[in-house]
Amino acid sequence: MSQVNSGLSDASNSPVESVTVRLPDGTVHQHPGQTTPLDIATGISEGLARSVVAADVDGKVIDADRPLSELADSESQELGLRLLTSRDDEALDVLRHSAAHVMARAVMRLYKGVSLAFGPTTEGGFYYDFALDTPISEDDFSKIEAEMKAIIKQKEPFERFILERDEARQLCDDLDQDLKVEHIDTGLKEHPTVSFYRQGEFVDLCRGPHIPNAGKIKAIKLMSIAGSHWKGDTNNRPLQRLYGTAFFDKKQLKAYLERLEEAKRRDHRVIGKQHGLFSITPEVGQGLCLWLPKGARVRVALEDFLRKELLSRGYDPVYSPHIGRVELYETSGHFPFYRDSQFPPLFGSEVGALLDSWSNRLEAGTIDSDGEDKLMAAVEVLGVDLPDYKPSMNAEEKRRVLHEWQLGNERYLLKPMNCPHHCHIFKAQARSYRQLPLRLFEFGTVYRHEQTGELNGLLRVRGLTQDDAHIFCSQDQVEQEFRATIELTQFVLQSVGLDDYRVQLSLRDPDSSKYVGSEEQWDNAENALRGVLEQSGMDFNEEPGEAAFYGPKADFMVRDCIGRSWQLGTVQLDYNLPERFKLEYNGADNTAHRPVMIHRAPFGSLERFTGMLIEHFAGAFPMWLSPEQVRVLPLSDKSLDYAVSVARQLEEAGLKVTIDSSGGKVQAKIRNAQLDLVNYMAVVGPKEAETGQLALRDRIDGDLGSMPVAEAVARLTKEVNQRTVRQAVKIEE
Amino acid sequence: MSQVNSGLSDASNSPVESVTVRLPDGTVHQHPGQTTPLDIATGISEGLARSVVAADVDGKVIDADRPLSELADSESQELGLRLLTSRDDEALDVLRHSAAHVMARAVMRLYKGVSLAFGPTTEGGFYYDFALDTPISEDDFSKIEAEMKAIIKQKEPFERFILERDEARQLCDDLDQDLKVEHIDTGLKEHPTVSFYRQGEFVDLCRGPHIPNAGKIKAIKLMSIAGSHWKGDTNNRPLQRLYGTAFFDKKQLKAYLERLEEAKRRDHRVIGKQHGLFSITPEVGQGLCLWLPKGARVRVALEDFLRKELLSRGYDPVYSPHIGRVELYETSGHFPFYRDSQFPPLFGSEVGALLDSWSNRLEAGTIDSDGEDKLMAAVEVLGVDLPDYKPSMNAEEKRRVLHEWQLGNERYLLKPMNCPHHCHIFKAQARSYRQLPLRLFEFGTVYRHEQTGELNGLLRVRGLTQDDAHIFCSQDQVEQEFRATIELTQFVLQSVGLDDYRVQLSLRDPDSSKYVGSEEQWDNAENALRGVLEQSGMDFNEEPGEAAFYGPKADFMVRDCIGRSWQLGTVQLDYNLPERFKLEYNGADNTAHRPVMIHRAPFGSLERFTGMLIEHFAGAFPMWLSPEQVRVLPLSDKSLDYAVSVARQLEEAGLKVTIDSSGGKVQAKIRNAQLDLVNYMAVVGPKEAETGQLALRDRIDGDLGSMPVAEAVARLTKEVNQRTVRQAVKIEE
Repeated sequence: MSQVNSGLSDASNSPVESVTVRLPDGTVHQHPGQTTPLDIATGISEGLARSVVAADVDGKVIDADRPLSELADSESQELGLRLLTSRDDEALDVLRHSAAHVMARAVMRLYKGVSLAFGPTTEGGFYYDFALDTPISEDDFSKIEAEMKAIIKQKEPFERFILERDEARQLCDDLDQDLKVEHIDTGLKEHPTVSFYRQGEFVDLCRGPHIPNAGKIKAIKLMSIAGSHWKGDTNNRPLQRLYGTAFFDKKQLKAYLERLEEAKRRDHRVIGKQHGLFSITPEVGQGLCLWLPKGARVRVALEDFLRKELLSRGYDPVYSPHIGRVELYETSGHFPFYRDSQFPPLFGSEVGALLDSWSNRLEAGTIDSDGEDKLMAAVEVLGVDLPDYKPSMNAEEKRRVLHEWQLGNERYLLKPMNCPHHCHIFKAQARSYRQLPLRLFEFGTVYRHEQTGELNGLLRVRGLTQDDAHIFCSQDQVEQEFRATIELTQFVLQSVGLDDYRVQLSLRDPDSSKYVGSEEQWDNAENALRGVLEQSGMDFNEEPGEAAFYGPKADFMVRDCIGRSWQLGTVQLDYNLPERFKLEYNGADNTAHRPVMIHRAPFGSLERFTGMLIEHFAGAFPMWLSPEQVRVLPLSDKSLDYAVSVARQLEEAGLKVTIDSSGGKVQAKIRNAQLDLVNYMAVVGPKEAETGQLALRDRIDGDLGSMPVAEAVARLTKEVNQRTVRQAVKIEE
Repeated sequence: MSQVNSGLSDASNSPVESVTVRLPDGTVHQHPGQTTPLDIATGISEGLARSVVAADVDGKVIDADRPLSELADSESQELGLRLLTSRDDEALDVLRHSAAHVMARAVMRLYKGVSLAFGPTTEGGFYYDFALDTPISEDDFSKIEAEMKAIIKQKEPFERFILERDEARQLCDDLDQDLKVEHIDTGLKEHPTVSFYRQGEFVDLCRGPHIPNAGKIKAIKLMSIAGSHWKGDTNNRPLQRLYGTAFFDKKQLKAYLERLEEAKRRDHRVIGKQHGLFSITPEVGQGLCLWLPKGARVRVALEDFLRKELLSRGYDPVYSPHIGRVELYETSGHFPFYRDSQFPPLFGSEVGALLDSWSNRLEAGTIDSDGEDKLMAAVEVLGVDLPDYKPSMNAEEKRRVLHEWQLGNERYLLKPMNCPHHCHIFKAQARSYRQLPLRLFEFGTVYRHEQTGELNGLLRVRGLTQDDAHIFCSQDQVEQEFRATIELTQFVLQSVGLDDYRVQLSLRDPDSSKYVGSEEQWDNAENALRGVLEQSGMDFNEEPGEAAFYGPKADFMVRDCIGRSWQLGTVQLDYNLPERFKLEYNGADNTAHRPVMIHRAPFGSLERFTGMLIEHFAGAFPMWLSPEQVRVLPLSDKSLDYAVSVARQLEEAGLKVTIDSSGGKVQAKIRNAQLDLVNYMAVVGPKEAETGQLALRDRIDGDLGSMPVAEAVARLTKEVNQRTVRQAVKIEE
């Protein structure tokens, strides 16, 4: 939910004279057209009016002092109004966008020749990009913050006004804001009017909304400075990007900064290195993860858990290769449309890459006849003849000739998706309605060529293993299968102790015709999905227009223990691939039917899920996921034999056990085990050896006393089998 | 062990006057130099003399009538002599090579203008290649066989003689054998003398050995005719290849032909399709296997079994990506030396492939300056500038310029091996001697671009998943680790009921200097390996000179139930990669040491092992590997609910269960289950429902009577857990 000073105006051209307003309690009233949300708040109570930050009208957030007539198309239209105070999630975003204006205003007061670009909000705050010759450094932050506080203290209002495009351009020109002028000429060229906000001497092209006055901003902090470019293109003018954050009170800022510190301490890249979980080296390749033994044990536990669960839920295992012929992805539509995010094809012939490059240039229109001649000469040197390629052809015909040559020479693609392979597994045998739903699962590793700058440890990689499955079912099985996948995802999240989540249900835009599948199919599917989510009692929200063109989907948005939100498990309906691959089954009526496909992945990918878990647990995995569940600590070398025998008994019960046979004192061994995040320590000395016992120590609760080995085995295996999660520490905001 | 009529003579130049011969019973005698093995046989008994086929002198097989002086360098040299009769494996090979001569002789009698190429033995018989204008078809086989039988009936001897190279060339020329002349001029150009064999009017350039006379051949059969080329090069003269087989008696031939029929019935490609085990489609790509649900269940069982076993044997799991930077394989030495069998690199830049191709041409010397100019022009069109490339440079310098450009632009290779990745996992953390042996395992999928014609179902694929592991250990841990891997491999083979195998121990050639690692390392390692094999009591043979340059190895040669031999599990020592990757650990002496690496894979690959198992079991997997262990057969729809409840109880015990809910009669259901190779059937009707029982039926033994469900569960889970193998039917020769 980010807001941008892009200046696009949504003012209605014909304001109505009165508006019909429905409040969340269901009451409906008629008001004069010029009535603002603030007026309505005042009508309820002065206290409410003081705390109103903005308003939500039918899902659209607006200024609290905006006349409601501007939102209504007719007087009979009922506007659903929700007054937003600092308690509402949306309000913080409005506050931060206003804080971005305040920051820009402070910078313009302190520096000459500032050219404003854009200043949107982000997940944790806001930034503003500007062109400025003087480089800003962190040393300047206190000065800018002081100026911002001075502005805030004056509590000046944010005033919205609308200009015709010409006037808007003139205003920006007068203000020497050349980037805003350029934006009006390009990004806004279709818009007849443009909105601005003024606060004191500061005027900015901006869509809004804003808080009523700057006094609402109770806590600000500048976070960092970075380089960027106008409109994100490195060929454009370099800009300085100043990041900040803002809150409704100082406590929230303090908690946020503590959370950031906590997140830094939990950085999975640091913990991953420190505890030998994974390694990414430039020699193997960027974004290509090596799972070290301890990390791999976590992954094995996750895979074993899910595989067992899927087999018991009627899934069938499959395996497929990591490459496929390029034509396979042409059929699926993944190539060439997503080629920028894919690894380049493997060309069976040396000349293939050259022809591919040539074809791309023809498509982009970036090659002239001289260039073509030179490429043709090179191709001849490489021993290939293209007699069908004529200079007189148009680009499309030339590309067809090049493509035909490629067809005769196998090209492969590292698979960016498992779906095309699974479609071919569906096709490999004659299918009957009796076999449906067919649920094919695979821990399928796919490869995507993410930009170097986007890579981030396990969270953003170039090779990722999806806990992928494709369910092939009939239209009337969609509801039951959707319910089952939702339940599976809940079960998986619960198993790792993630219980704070909601589902985002992405539906089609009813006004668009870009979707495949019939109107009826969509209606049925969307109703079925909504029904399942309503019955589940889960928190969910609908996002019309957010569905993929091939079907509606549900995403699990999960909060971790320090309040960060992660998009994890996803369930997606697909009417497209069954069509493209011409999948069919023989129905009860003995005629051919097309199945519906459901893509789903409760983890998403093993890499991202594990990365998230490392941060969620700060590396201290719960027993069932832990790579080192028990460490046996002999009091001295004399007890080593007994330690080995204890370790063997624990191992035979399926526990992951190590022995600290170093020569040190037991206190040092305990300290090391705590540092290594081992779940339990079994201290053994002569006394324990004599009685067949061990002294159990819990990393969290400390000493649990001596007990027979069998009792410890029972206790620990129970914690594993029940998948008890008690490690993640929740920090309250 | 194939023999070729290549005519290379091993005649010693200075025959000794007497020879010292040691027989297998240890007795040593002095004989005159001209004494032949046949003479010695005659000295023992007339019967033995009649049955001698050839002789083994110190591991070299020779004619029975060859003077032993030709094998001795001095009179004091003790020759170990073993007389070979039809009972010895080596004898069959000699017989078949003689049969190839007989076949060639028959063809020359029946056709004019036959030009002989080579005629070696094969695993199941022999072939002879010849140039002949008249095409031979299967219709001609009986005619040729009749002529062969006529030749055999005459029992003419095979007579060896030696000629100087000039004389040999003249003789072949006189015989109009132009291909033999060419071979003397090329393949034998380093040899001063050449050996020939004569049988009646038929004379052939040949190294031998042969049987004493053709009468030993008691059974022959021509098998097939195919096309080939002189010296295997498709650019050379086309030849006809006539395949045949021969035996010491007719029964053996009959058993062999039955085995071939049986092998055809067991063809894993046919069974794999019929039972939905796997699928290979041209759309996904040749040699790229899709594991269908039933095949995947077999693989899951194999992987689960081995993973559990490895974890309990102190292995650590790891995961690595399926690609790596080309430089990684340059370090390991896998690139560019094996590039013909690898998929082409993925070039991060479009121009990369062109530069690669260019560099290859420079290396091969197949590009002139005009070609270089054209490629340079093309590269410029593609936007790349190579200012350091000068026409005056030599090829090596030019290649360096091209290579440097590549270094700046990431190229990846689909991994042909897992070792380089595992070396980087070793390197990812500081290693101490306390961590050794470090045993890293992964089901690692590798890709090799096998020739299309070589592909064969699961047995020869382009994507294969190795049950790979690399053990990093100190030199003095080699013996214990080798023993453990040998025991593991034995355990794995025994678990699938393969108990007929021997080990081939490949050692270095003591006269060669191509090996890496010190003399002392090799001596220690070879002695350790030999010692372990001796202690194991296993059948093993040593093959000096067969070791890889990087270390000695042991391969398991396994016979399946129809007598075919498969090279399965392999264990290889490696002194090379630790050196190339500069692997080090900190020793007890606190200095850096280089570890030894052991590569091992008990299955080899999941694909090949499963393909072999499909053929070995004719698709009827033993219980623990079976994709469908029990099928519940309700007598009618009325018993369906009870069938579901029975199935659930079986499933909860971990069994793989299906229900036949089709409307048919139970007899038909049983027949279908038998055809589908389901291990057990659980027949349930009203009687069983009333008593909580099921009527168990074994696919092999038939009806086992009614029993409580719990009893069936106990019986079947026991068979799974004990990994009982009772399905493979052994056909005796």
